[in-house]
Amino acid sequence: MELLSNDAIQEALKELPNWEIVDKKWLERKFKFNHYLSGIDFVNELAKYAEEKIHHPVIIIDHTTVTLRISSIEIGGLTDLDVEMIKHFNQLFKNQNKN
Amino acid sequence: MELLSNDAIQEALKELPNWEIVDKKWLERKFKFNHYLSGIDFVNELAKYAEEKIHHPVIIIDHTTVTLRISSIEIGGLTDLDVEMIKHFNQLFKNQNKN
Repeated sequence: MELLSNDAIQEALKELPNWEIVDKKWLERKFKFNHYLSGIDFVNELAKYAEEKIHHPVIIIDHTTVTLRISSIEIGGLTDLDVEMIKHFNQLFKNQNKN
Repeated sequence: MELLSNDAIQEALKELPNWEIVDKKWLERKFKFNHYLSGIDFVNELAKYAEEKIHHPVIIIDHTTVTLRISSIEIGGLTDLDVEMIKHFNQLFKNQNKN
């Protein structure tokens, strides 16, 4: 897995408007929920997926806000895997808010 | 619910050796797990309890380390409720590691 170029990251971010770059090597998004346990349900879903991928974002649960922060930190920055997983996190959030 | 005095906090900490004061108003502990999903199980248990108590610690999941940070931030510091909940978090962790 190779590091993405800055251009590739900027291109990917065009489709990921809620995500922002932090410290040049992380992508971060805050997900807001109406209920505390809905946020916990989201964490369960994304954690199962992260474990399948053997790639684990940092998860911060502050009441009804769940922040995800992801990077391929072992190689020092962002890769296609991070972008692929971010799209799946967004989809999980959308699916949950349909119900 | 009243703020605990510094003396009362120090007294409580004698029984809570793994917890430390952060920024004068939070108590924090890192819990380490052998498996990522064991940490997630712990988060589920403590989140149910936090919701019952209507008092929610900040939870940070960084691979197999789960950090809890608690305060009665709405009144600016630590109370008996924080200490009561910390003891329960410790117990949940112990119970999980018995199995």
